[in-house]
Amino acid sequence: MSATSTTTDTAGTTGKPAVAVIGLGNLGQVLAERFLGHGHPTTVWNRSPAKADALVARGATRAGTAAEAVAGAELVVVALLDHDAARDVLASAGDALAGRSLLNVTTGTPGPTRELAAWVRDWGAEYLDGAVYAVPQTIGTAEAFVLYSGSRTAFETHRAALDLLGTSTFVGTEPELASVYDIALLSGMYGMFSGFFQAVALGDTAGIGAGRITELLVPWLNATAAALPEFAASIDSGDYATETSNMDINAVGLANILRATEAQGVPTDLLTPLQALFDRQIEEGHGAASLARTIESLRKPRA
Amino acid sequence: MSATSTTTDTAGTTGKPAVAVIGLGNLGQVLAERFLGHGHPTTVWNRSPAKADALVARGATRAGTAAEAVAGAELVVVALLDHDAARDVLASAGDALAGRSLLNVTTGTPGPTRELAAWVRDWGAEYLDGAVYAVPQTIGTAEAFVLYSGSRTAFETHRAALDLLGTSTFVGTEPELASVYDIALLSGMYGMFSGFFQAVALGDTAGIGAGRITELLVPWLNATAAALPEFAASIDSGDYATETSNMDINAVGLANILRATEAQGVPTDLLTPLQALFDRQIEEGHGAASLARTIESLRKPRA
Ligand SMILES: NC(=O)c1ccc[n+]([C@@H]2O[C@H](COP(=O)([O-])OP(=O)(O)OC[C@H]3O[C@@H](n4cnc5c(N)ncnc54)[C@H](OP(=O)(O)O)[C@@H]3O)[C@@H](O)[C@H]2O)c1
Ligand SMILES: NC(=O)c1ccc[n+]([C@@H]2O[C@H](COP(=O)([O-])OP(=O)(O)OC[C@H]3O[C@@H](n4cnc5c(N)ncnc54)[C@H](OP(=O)(O)O)[C@@H]3O)[C@@H](O)[C@H]2O)c1
Repeated sequence: MSATSTTTDTAGTTGKPAVAVIGLGNLGQVLAERFLGHGHPTTVWNRSPAKADALVARGATRAGTAAEAVAGAELVVVALLDHDAARDVLASAGDALAGRSLLNVTTGTPGPTRELAAWVRDWGAEYLDGAVYAVPQTIGTAEAFVLYSGSRTAFETHRAALDLLGTSTFVGTEPELASVYDIALLSGMYGMFSGFFQAVALGDTAGIGAGRITELLVPWLNATAAALPEFAASIDSGDYATETSNMDINAVGLANILRATEAQGVPTDLLTPLQALFDRQIEEGHGAASLARTIESLRKPRA
Repeated sequence: MSATSTTTDTAGTTGKPAVAVIGLGNLGQVLAERFLGHGHPTTVWNRSPAKADALVARGATRAGTAAEAVAGAELVVVALLDHDAARDVLASAGDALAGRSLLNVTTGTPGPTRELAAWVRDWGAEYLDGAVYAVPQTIGTAEAFVLYSGSRTAFETHRAALDLLGTSTFVGTEPELASVYDIALLSGMYGMFSGFFQAVALGDTAGIGAGRITELLVPWLNATAAALPEFAASIDSGDYATETSNMDINAVGLANILRATEAQGVPTDLLTPLQALFDRQIEEGHGAASLARTIESLRKPRA
């Protein structure tokens, strides 16, 4: 038994809850290994059966069908390509789901997740959704984290097993919440990537290497990200008063940057949409407000 | 004499080089205070003379004209609204500039900076450009940094005085280089801000407060920014082979995110330009290449 485990569950010969892993792609493989390595009786199923071989050699039980995998498990973990695949495979398990906890780590979006959750609950199972922030290599390390939403009962009952994947955070009982956080955080990351590519392209025009720009950019992004909680506080309170960097100053600054960017022969498309949001606030009379007020342009898009 | 100073210059009664600060707005005020507080004989000039009063009371010398301020100084620091103001004021100083080092911390863009530098050199002065990453309150603290470009002689001669402002980095002898870094780093920041607003708007649709999204977003951005040096290395080497997260995977991921974003009623404008850059790489046959290859879409914009 693992030294890190404090579970008091009694199922299975190891005293840890029996787990089924449905889908043994890059992620599912590693999840099954973690459960197995920490003493959970682990049953595995994959559409292409060969992907189960190595796990079975290490002690996992091979199931012939998804229904068979589900049947013996308290916690059923689904790691499939997408929600369509998850629904098809779970439909084949049907009644076998009743009374179990289902953790779905297949990447999904809010609408389809809500539907899948309702459907799983109709089969009598607890639905827990997981958004995994890790690559297979980092699962179980300090940098991995997983956001969970849906059944708090499933989360609490299986907390010890979930903690094997990474830092666990329960974000709410609406099943789609984890996927809302997921698209939000990934949108934030893609915005940062837009800025990165723009910065590198600018450096390029003056013979500055990407490595050199990035050396300065990363600490600068870390420093300016530290200002975001202040923006968030303005947004949450609706108090957009500022003494430092207002909408007018930023709009002038960004317009200068974009003019200079054009002069350097670099496209400005990645940043003009932000400029439009600034301009909209200024047109509406909020030039002296905090930059944080940009959010209002997104909340009420121009008709 | 300040314990941190190791200067061996001999001008002025304190043994430190005489400095003139031209422009006493929010930034110039604080720069003059720093020089004065560290024993530099400091002459100040501002268009509206009253802004010099507090500095004069603390020991600065008031100059009646910009030419008079320049005349007694080894290092002339210009902190004016914009390059037009800088050129006008320096024109009025004219010949008095000969033989001095001029540091211009007025925010500028590459083209105008190149012109101003040529013009200052024609007057017989050394031109040094400074891009200041600080607000007046943080000048001289550990978080402040200044990128310098242009005259290496001026940078080296006045290094001790420059270090009073923040961490000094000399980025090259082309005078416009600091401004290229400046627009690059600020573009990176505005990209990150785009992502922040997008993330907050998405959270909003599910009743998640901006503060809560930001609590998770900031560490996530810090973690993913740590991947940027790897992207930069691919870009600098031109080797876009990858085993992990390629263009195809990211394009599918981003398309899913944007579809879900629309379904939540949030505009997608901030991120569609990045999607277009991904799509362009895929159309050109680079779907299996590293996401870093996105830079090629910016380098050779579609006709
Ligand atoms: N890999 C990661 O780092 C990571 C991180 C966070 C989230 N995720 C998410 O986790 C999920 C799985 O990712 P992955 O990397 O493991 O993907 P993957 O390596 O492509 O594996 C996909 C799995 O789905 C199965 N599958 C696909 N279509 C199916 C169908 N119609 N019926 C039955 N099985 C089907 C595949 O079975 P076959 O072997 O038979 O093809 C395979 O087991 C995805 O939603 C992904 O976004 C992954
Ligand atoms: N503040 C910062 O944190 C910061 C940081 C980095 C870079 N910068 C850059 O530093 C420069 C100065 O910033 P700041 O915050 O000090 O600006 P500011 O407070 O607005 O001060 C502007 C200064 O420019 C003078 N000025 C404007 N037009 C002039 C003209 N035609 N002739 C003569 N003087 C003129 C003003 O004189 P009057 O007093 O007579 O109006 C004032 O001294 C800007 O380019 C800014 O982007 C500032």
